[in-house]
Amino acid sequence: MALSDDSTESKLAQPLARYAPYRRAGDFVFLSGIIAVDPATGLIVKGFGDIGDEAAALIGRTGEFSVDIKQGPILAQSWYVLDGIRRTVESVGGRMSDVQKLVQYFKNLDHFPYYSSVRKLFFPDVAPASTVVQVSAMLPTDDILIEVEATVYLPTGTRV
Amino acid sequence: MALSDDSTESKLAQPLARYAPYRRAGDFVFLSGIIAVDPATGLIVKGFGDIGDEAAALIGRTGEFSVDIKQGPILAQSWYVLDGIRRTVESVGGRMSDVQKLVQYFKNLDHFPYYSSVRKLFFPDVAPASTVVQVSAMLPTDDILIEVEATVYLPTGTRV
Amino acid sequence: MALSDDSTESKLAQPLARYAPYRRAGDFVFLSGIIAVDPATGLIVKGFGDIGDEAAALIGRTGEFSVDIKQGPILAQSWYVLDGIRRTVESVGGRMSDVQKLVQYFKNLDHFPYYSSVRKLFFPDVAPASTVVQVSAMLPTDDILIEVEATVYLPTGTRV
Amino acid sequence: MALSDDSTESKLAQPLARYAPYRRAGDFVFLSGIIAVDPATGLIVKGFGDIGDEAAALIGRTGEFSVDIKQGPILAQSWYVLDGIRRTVESVGGRMSDVQKLVQYFKNLDHFPYYSSVRKLFFPDVAPASTVVQVSAMLPTDDILIEVEATVYLPTGTRV
Amino acid sequence: MALSDDSTESKLAQPLARYAPYRRAGDFVFLSGIIAVDPATGLIVKGFGDIGDEAAALIGRTGEFSVDIKQGPILAQSWYVLDGIRRTVESVGGRMSDVQKLVQYFKNLDHFPYYSSVRKLFFPDVAPASTVVQVSAMLPTDDILIEVEATVYLPTGTRV
Amino acid sequence: MALSDDSTESKLAQPLARYAPYRRAGDFVFLSGIIAVDPATGLIVKGFGDIGDEAAALIGRTGEFSVDIKQGPILAQSWYVLDGIRRTVESVGGRMSDVQKLVQYFKNLDHFPYYSSVRKLFFPDVAPASTVVQVSAMLPTDDILIEVEATVYLPTGTRV
Amino acid sequence: MALSDDSTESKLAQPLARYAPYRRAGDFVFLSGIIAVDPATGLIVKGFGDIGDEAAALIGRTGEFSVDIKQGPILAQSWYVLDGIRRTVESVGGRMSDVQKLVQYFKNLDHFPYYSSVRKLFFPDVAPASTVVQVSAMLPTDDILIEVEATVYLPTGTRV
Amino acid sequence: MALSDDSTESKLAQPLARYAPYRRAGDFVFLSGIIAVDPATGLIVKGFGDIGDEAAALIGRTGEFSVDIKQGPILAQSWYVLDGIRRTVESVGGRMSDVQKLVQYFKNLDHFPYYSSVRKLFFPDVAPASTVVQVSAMLPTDDILIEVEATVYLPTGTRV
Amino acid sequence: MALSDDSTESKLAQPLARYAPYRRAGDFVFLSGIIAVDPATGLIVKGFGDIGDEAAALIGRTGEFSVDIKQGPILAQSWYVLDGIRRTVESVGGRMSDVQKLVQYFKNLDHFPYYSSVRKLFFPDVAPASTVVQVSAMLPTDDILIEVEATVYLPTGTRV
Amino acid sequence: MALSDDSTESKLAQPLARYAPYRRAGDFVFLSGIIAVDPATGLIVKGFGDIGDEAAALIGRTGEFSVDIKQGPILAQSWYVLDGIRRTVESVGGRMSDVQKLVQYFKNLDHFPYYSSVRKLFFPDVAPASTVVQVSAMLPTDDILIEVEATVYLPTGTRV
Amino acid sequence: MALSDDSTESKLAQPLARYAPYRRAGDFVFLSGIIAVDPATGLIVKGFGDIGDEAAALIGRTGEFSVDIKQGPILAQSWYVLDGIRRTVESVGGRMSDVQKLVQYFKNLDHFPYYSSVRKLFFPDVAPASTVVQVSAMLPTDDILIEVEATVYLPTGTRV
Amino acid sequence: MALSDDSTESKLAQPLARYAPYRRAGDFVFLSGIIAVDPATGLIVKGFGDIGDEAAALIGRTGEFSVDIKQGPILAQSWYVLDGIRRTVESVGGRMSDVQKLVQYFKNLDHFPYYSSVRKLFFPDVAPASTVVQVSAMLPTDDILIEVEATVYLPTGTRV
Repeated sequence: MALSDDSTESKLAQPLARYAPYRRAGDFVFLSGIIAVDPATGLIVKGFGDIGDEAAALIGRTGEFSVDIKQGPILAQSWYVLDGIRRTVESVGGRMSDVQKLVQYFKNLDHFPYYSSVRKLFFPDVAPASTVVQVSAMLPTDDILIEVEATVYLPTGTRV
Repeated sequence: MALSDDSTESKLAQPLARYAPYRRAGDFVFLSGIIAVDPATGLIVKGFGDIGDEAAALIGRTGEFSVDIKQGPILAQSWYVLDGIRRTVESVGGRMSDVQKLVQYFKNLDHFPYYSSVRKLFFPDVAPASTVVQVSAMLPTDDILIEVEATVYLPTGTRV
Repeated sequence: MALSDDSTESKLAQPLARYAPYRRAGDFVFLSGIIAVDPATGLIVKGFGDIGDEAAALIGRTGEFSVDIKQGPILAQSWYVLDGIRRTVESVGGRMSDVQKLVQYFKNLDHFPYYSSVRKLFFPDVAPASTVVQVSAMLPTDDILIEVEATVYLPTGTRV
Repeated sequence: MALSDDSTESKLAQPLARYAPYRRAGDFVFLSGIIAVDPATGLIVKGFGDIGDEAAALIGRTGEFSVDIKQGPILAQSWYVLDGIRRTVESVGGRMSDVQKLVQYFKNLDHFPYYSSVRKLFFPDVAPASTVVQVSAMLPTDDILIEVEATVYLPTGTRV
Repeated sequence: MALSDDSTESKLAQPLARYAPYRRAGDFVFLSGIIAVDPATGLIVKGFGDIGDEAAALIGRTGEFSVDIKQGPILAQSWYVLDGIRRTVESVGGRMSDVQKLVQYFKNLDHFPYYSSVRKLFFPDVAPASTVVQVSAMLPTDDILIEVEATVYLPTGTRV
Repeated sequence: MALSDDSTESKLAQPLARYAPYRRAGDFVFLSGIIAVDPATGLIVKGFGDIGDEAAALIGRTGEFSVDIKQGPILAQSWYVLDGIRRTVESVGGRMSDVQKLVQYFKNLDHFPYYSSVRKLFFPDVAPASTVVQVSAMLPTDDILIEVEATVYLPTGTRV
Repeated sequence: MALSDDSTESKLAQPLARYAPYRRAGDFVFLSGIIAVDPATGLIVKGFGDIGDEAAALIGRTGEFSVDIKQGPILAQSWYVLDGIRRTVESVGGRMSDVQKLVQYFKNLDHFPYYSSVRKLFFPDVAPASTVVQVSAMLPTDDILIEVEATVYLPTGTRV
Repeated sequence: MALSDDSTESKLAQPLARYAPYRRAGDFVFLSGIIAVDPATGLIVKGFGDIGDEAAALIGRTGEFSVDIKQGPILAQSWYVLDGIRRTVESVGGRMSDVQKLVQYFKNLDHFPYYSSVRKLFFPDVAPASTVVQVSAMLPTDDILIEVEATVYLPTGTRV
Repeated sequence: MALSDDSTESKLAQPLARYAPYRRAGDFVFLSGIIAVDPATGLIVKGFGDIGDEAAALIGRTGEFSVDIKQGPILAQSWYVLDGIRRTVESVGGRMSDVQKLVQYFKNLDHFPYYSSVRKLFFPDVAPASTVVQVSAMLPTDDILIEVEATVYLPTGTRV
Repeated sequence: MALSDDSTESKLAQPLARYAPYRRAGDFVFLSGIIAVDPATGLIVKGFGDIGDEAAALIGRTGEFSVDIKQGPILAQSWYVLDGIRRTVESVGGRMSDVQKLVQYFKNLDHFPYYSSVRKLFFPDVAPASTVVQVSAMLPTDDILIEVEATVYLPTGTRV
Repeated sequence: MALSDDSTESKLAQPLARYAPYRRAGDFVFLSGIIAVDPATGLIVKGFGDIGDEAAALIGRTGEFSVDIKQGPILAQSWYVLDGIRRTVESVGGRMSDVQKLVQYFKNLDHFPYYSSVRKLFFPDVAPASTVVQVSAMLPTDDILIEVEATVYLPTGTRV
Repeated sequence: MALSDDSTESKLAQPLARYAPYRRAGDFVFLSGIIAVDPATGLIVKGFGDIGDEAAALIGRTGEFSVDIKQGPILAQSWYVLDGIRRTVESVGGRMSDVQKLVQYFKNLDHFPYYSSVRKLFFPDVAPASTVVQVSAMLPTDDILIEVEATVYLPTGTRV
C-alpha cells in the first residue's frame, strides 16, 4: 500500500505528537524533525512498496528481492523524508535551495551512501550546511532509520 | 531536599560548565541545552522529592512508592527542564509562546509519553517546532534522562 | 605526518560529502558539523602527531608515550575542530566571539574535561550557548571522537 | 482490527495450549496465567487499536501517534488481561472483589506505572494480595508484556 | 547411569535444600517446586541416558546422536519432573487429576513444545490451570531447564 | 540509619503500591510478595546498617568492611523480608510454622547460601514447601535482591 | 495466506536475486541455496499457516497456539525448503534419491531435531551426504531459519 | 598503494596458506575460497585506493570522502575477489560463464546490494547457481568482508 | 579413555544423524561434514587424552598441563577429523591425494595455526583446494571446534 | 574422587607448566601463583567432594545440595590453594606466619566473603600484607576461581 | 564530607578486611594494595569533595560542575591512594623515594593520564619501577577505580 | 619495519611513562612491567615483521600468510618482551637464570601455549617462579597482548 501521492496540501510533513510541523520566526522557518511516517495514517515507510513506483524507480529499485529488501528501507525513508521537507518548504512559498541547514540523525551511519545518493536528487545545485550523527533511537519505533531537521531562510516579502 | 523555589533571578537555567546559559543574536535568543541539575548546588533532580510538592502534584505523583519511583525521575526532570526554560525566557522578556524550536534529547524514548504530558502544561496553546532523538548519554552523569535546547524569537523592541 | 599549517584559504573546514561547509542566511552563518579530518587529504586526526608541535604543546602533550596515546586523540581532535571553526568564521569576516551557539556531539562524554580545556583557549572571554550530547557514531569512521556544529551571528555590513 | 466486544460467554480468558483456563477446587478457583491474546483468533494485543475505542479512551489514549505507540502496548495489554480475569471470574459467579491474590509477571518493570493505573479501574475498593516480578519471557511471543495469574475465593453456595 | 526406577517410597520428589517436599494444609497439598535432580544422589538429569529406556522411548528418543543430544535434555527433564510430581501426589493418596494448578518456570520458552508433548502423557484427560514463564536461572545449576510447582486439591477423607 | 525496631503494629510488611499486604480467604491467608523496603519511609535495606545491631550480629556481620559490604545486602534483605513475614503472620494470629508455602524470587541465585542460612533461623523446625527461581528484576529498584511470597494456613477459630 | 500449491512449473525454487536457480554441468546439477520464500510473491514462510493444511498436518501441527507458534516457523520452513528442492529436482527429471549432498545452514542448531524429522519424510530410504553448520544470518531477512544447498547427480541420458 | 594490475600470470588468486588455489578433477575445476588479499604482498584490500582508478570508477566511487569510506571496502573487495576468480578461470582456459556455482560468505549481509551490483558486471548474461550466508569471521583478519568459492565446469578438450 | 585405534572398518567417519557418511556419484565421492565424535560411542574428542599417545605425540603434546589443556582440544580434533577423512577415503579405494576440495568450518579462526600444522601431516605433497570460514556453532554441541567436508575425485576403474 | 591426602612430600603445590613452584633468593622465598589443581593428576577442584570430608566440614559444608553446589567451589578452592601454600612453605622449613605478602586474584569478587572465612583458618594470628583484584581469567580453565601468589621471608639459618 | 586531614597516626592506609596494612621483612616493607576508602569510616572517595580543598586544588579541580564530576573521581582517588602510601611509608620511617616498585591496578586505563599527573606530585625526582594493568573489579565496590601496591626498601638501621 | 637490532645499550626495556625501567634495592632488582613497544619510537610489535628475521625464524614463522597473521602477534610480542628482560638484566650484570619471579599478564590466556614455547628458549635450564593471569587491558593500547614483570636476585658484589 503506497503512501505517496502528490496532493501537497494533505501531505505537509506533520509531526506525530503535539507540536508544530514548522514555525516561522522573522525571515526563518524552522521545521520539526521529520521521519518517514505518513501523517494521516501513521504508517511507517518500510521499503519501496510504500512510496510509489515512480519514486522507487528514481532512487534505485532493482527488482531483485534480496537486494531491494536490504536497500529499500533506507532509500525509501530517505526519499520520503526529503520529499516531506520539499512539500513543507513549498507550502510556505520556498524552494529546496532556501534550505540553509540540515541536521540528519541516522540509526546506522552505514546507511549514509544510500541517503547521500537520494539527497543529491533534491539538492542538485547548491547544498545546505549539514550535520550528520548516529543516534540510538528515534520516534516512534525502531523501524525509523533517519530523521532530518531543516532550517529555511525565507525573507518575508520574497516569493508569494 | 527540594531543589525548587521561585526566586526567578537565582534560578535561571545556568550551564554547568564554562559557557553561556543563553546568547542573544539579533532577534533570536539561543538557549544552551538544559538538564535537570540545580545550578547553585549541583544536585541532580532524581524524583518528585526534588521539585516541591506543588509541581509534583501537578505532573502526576500518585503517592504509591513503586509507581512514583518508576515515573518520578522522568516526570520531575521534564518539569524541571521546561520550567528552567520558562524562567530563562521570561528573564529576557519573553514567554513560552516565543519559543520557536525545541531539540529534545532523551536517554530512553520510552519516556516520551511522560515528557509529553508535562510539555502540554507549558505549551497549552501554540507548540514549537520540535525534534526528538535518543542519545547514548548526556552531561553530567547517567542520571540525566533528558536535555532540551530551545530557540527563541524575540524581536528587539517588543516587550520590556 | 602533521595535518596542520596555517594557510587559511586552503584550510577552511570543508565537509566530506556533497554539502556546503557553511551557508550565510541574512545575518547568520550556519556552519556544517565539523570533524577532525583534513579536507584535502582525508586523513583523520588521531593524536598529537597530526596537528603540529606548537598546537600539541599548547594543549598538553606530555611526551610520555602511554599518557599521550591515551589523551592525544581527544585533545588533538578538539583542537583541530575548534581551529577549523575559527578559520571558517574568520574567512567570512568574523571572530570566535561571534559564535553564538555550539552543538557538540561526543562519542564518549568522559572526554569532556579534555575538550573543555581546549575550548577555553578558543573562547577566553565570552562563551557561546552550548549543547553537549553523546551519540553512538559519527562520520566518516569510528575514529571520530567529536563533531561540533556552530551558529554565527554576523550582521551584514559589520566587519569586512 | 479490534479484538474486543462484550459477549462474555465467547470471551473467557482461554489458555493457548492444552490446559484448563481455570479449575475450581473446593472454595477456591485457580485461574491460569492470562496474557493478552484473543482466544479465538490468536491475535496478540499490540496497542489501543486492538481493544475497542471505549476501553482505549478509558485507559488513556491521547490520539498523538508517538505517545500512543509507546504507551499503547502496555496499557492495552493491562486492560485486556484484567478484563479477561473479570470475565472469567464473573462466569463462575464471582466478582473482582473475590480475587484474593494476583501474581503479575512483567517483561519490563518500567511498565508498572501504566499497569497500576489500569488495575485501579478494576479494583476500585479492596485490592488483592499481590506479587510483582520481571521475567525474561512469556508465551507465546516476545510481544507479550504482562501475564497475570489470579486466585479467587468463592465459597460454594455463595452467589449463583 | 539411569536415575529412574519405580520404588515409590525412595523417590518422592525431594527438595535439595532444607524445606519440605510438600505440605498438607486442610484440603490442599502444596508441592515444592520440583527440578530434575535425583534426591538421593544429587545427579542432574541431562538427557535420555538418565531416565531409563522405557521412559526415553515413550517421550521420543530417536537414536540419532545429534537429534537426541539436542532434544534429550528438555524431554528427559520434563518427564522426570512430572513423574516426580506424580509419585509425590500418589504418596499422599492422590492422582494426577487432583492437580489443580501448575506454575511452570522455563529457562528457555523455545522448549515449550517439547515439554507440552510430555505433559500430555501425564494429563491425558482433564488438565490443570497453568502458568508458564521464562526465568533467568533455577537451582542448583545452569543445567536445570525447567521447574514445576504444583497445587493439589485432596479433600481429607477422600481416597486412602 | 537502621530501619528496624519491634513495634509490631507499625511494621507489618506493607505493600508499596495500591494492593493489600495480605488477604484472608477462608482458612488461608495470602501474603503479598514482600521485599526489603521500610513501609513507612520507603528506605531500601542495603546492608547490615539498616537492620539493627542485634539482627546483624545474628545473621553474620564480621565487622570487616570488604566482607560485610559484599554479604551484607543479601543477608540483611533476607532477614528483613522473613522478619516482615513473621510480623504479618503474627498480626493475624499465626506463627511461622503456619506458613505452608514460600515462593522465593532471587535476582542472583548465587545468593542462595546466604539466604538459606537466614531462613533456618526463622524455620528451625518444620519448613514450608518452597519454590526458588531467579528473575531479572523486582520492584521498586535494582537494589532489591529477593522477594518472598508466603501462603499461610490458619483455620478460623484456631488461635486468637 | 498459504504459499503452497502444487503447480510444479510455477514453483521451482527460484533465487531471490540475479542468479540461476540451478545449473547443469555434465552429469551434475547444482542447486542454489534455497530458503523459504515464495519466488513469486516474496512472502517469507513464517509458520504453519503459510504452507497449506496438508503439509502442516504432515509435519506436526498440534493446533495449540503456544506450541505451534514456537515450532511452526522451523517446521514449516524445513518443509518448504525441502519441497522446493524436490520440485526443482523433478523439473530436471530427477528424484530426491538423486540428491548426493546437502549443505544445511541453520540460524540456530537447536532447531535440528525439528528439521531432521521433516527431512526423513523426503528421504525415507537412502540419505544424501550432509553437512550442517550454524551461521549468523541468511538472505533476505532475519526471519530465515534455514538454507539448504543441494548437489544432484543425474547422468545425461538417464530418465526423461 | 593500488594492488591491481593486469599481468595475469602473477595475479592468479593464490591461497594464503598451504593449499592449492584450484584443483582440476575430471571436467571440473574447484577453486579455493578467495578473499581480497594480494597474494604477493599480503596487503588486504580496504577501499577504492587499493584496486586502481579504472576499477574504482567502474564500481561506483563517488569521490565524496564520507560516502566512499563507507561503501568502498565492500565494493572494492567484491571487485577484487570476482576479478581474482576471473583471472584464475581464464588461466585454466575457461571464462566466467563456465562458473557453475558460487558459495558466497559475507561478514555482514547488509553488504549484499553492493556486492550484487559488482557481480552483475562479471556475469552479464547467464549467472551461476549461488548460495549466500553470513558467517562470523574469515581468514586472515577481521578486515575481510567477503569470501567466494567457485566451482567451474570445463570439459577436458574444450578450449585450449 | 582414548577413542582411537586403527581397525579401519569400524572407524569410518560415520554421521551422527540419519544421513550417509559419503555418497559416490560418478567419478566423485562426496563426504559428509566430519566432526570429532566417535561414531560408536558418541564421545566427543576434547583433548590429547582422547586420541592415543602416538597421535598426541605426533601433533605436539608438550606434557605441560596448562599448555596442553589450551592447545589440546583443537589439535586433537584436527587430527581426529582428518584421520576420519583418511579412513573414509581409503575405504572407498582412494588416498588423501585424491581429495580435491576441503571446506573447513571453525568455531574460532584463532585455531587456524594449530589446524594448519596438523593438516600438513596429512597432505605432505599436493594440497586440496580449500575454503575456510568461522561459523557460530556446529553439531552436536559447543565442544565441537571444527568440521571438515571433503570432495574426492576417484574415477571409477582406477585403484580397486 | 577426593584429591586430598596429607603426604606432604608428594603434594607441594606444583606449577602446571614449565616453571618452578618456588624460588629461594637470599632470605626470601617466592612462590608461583597457586591454583586449585592437583599437581599429579591435573584434576581441578570443583567442590567439597574434591578435598576430603574433614576439610569440607571445617570450611562449612551444610549437606544441603543446593547450598553446597553454590558455595562449594569457592570454599574448596580457597582451602586447597591455601593448604598448598602451607605445604610448600613448610617444605622449605617455614610456617604460615612467615608469609609476608599475598596477591590474590579472583574471578568474581563476590566470592571474597567465602575466601576470607577460609583464610582466617590459615592465619589465625598475624596476617600477611594483601592485595586483592578481580581478573578476567586464570590458567588452566574457566573453572578456576582464585589464584594466590605468596612471598615468604625466611632468613637463612633460621629453622631447619 | 571530606575524608582528609593530616593526623598521620590515625590515617595509615589500613586494610578493609583481616590482613596487615604492611609487613616488614628484613630490609623490605610490603604494603597491602591500597584503595581510596577511609579506614575509619568506610567512606569511599568519589570526587574532589572527599579529599579537602587544598588537595583538590593541587590536582586540578576546575570548579566547573560537568568537568569536575567527570575527572574528579579518578583524580581524587589517585591522590588519596598515593597519599595513603606516603603516610604509611613515613610511619615506618621512610620517604616516597624509598618506594621501589608499584603495581597499579586500574578499572579503566583511559584514566591513566589523570593518575599519571598526580603521581608526578608524589615522585618529583626518582620514580619507582612500575607495572600497570587493567582489571575487571576491585574491593570493596565498583566505585573503586584504582588500587596500588607498593614495595619499599628500608634497610634496618637507616632512618629511625 | 623491523624494531630489532642488538645494540644493547640503546635497547634496555624502557618504560613508556614517567617511571624507572628498573630499581635496585639491596640484592634485588625490580623490573617494571614490560610490554612489546619500542622505547625509542613508540612502535608496537604487531607481528613477525617487527622483530627481525632471525628471531622470527627462531620462534616459528611459517611463511604462510594466514597462519603467521594469527600466531605472529603473540609469538613476536612474547619474544620482544622476554628479550627486553634479558637485555635489562644483562645491563645490570645478571643473566636470565637470576630472574626469580615472573608475573605474566595476558589479554587472552588462549595465547599461553605460544608464549610458553618462547619462554623455554629464554629459560632452557632453571625456570623462575611464575604467576599467570588474564587481565582486561594493558598500556598503551589494545594491541598489547602480554606484559611481564620480573624480579631479579643479584647479590651485590657478584658478577660485573
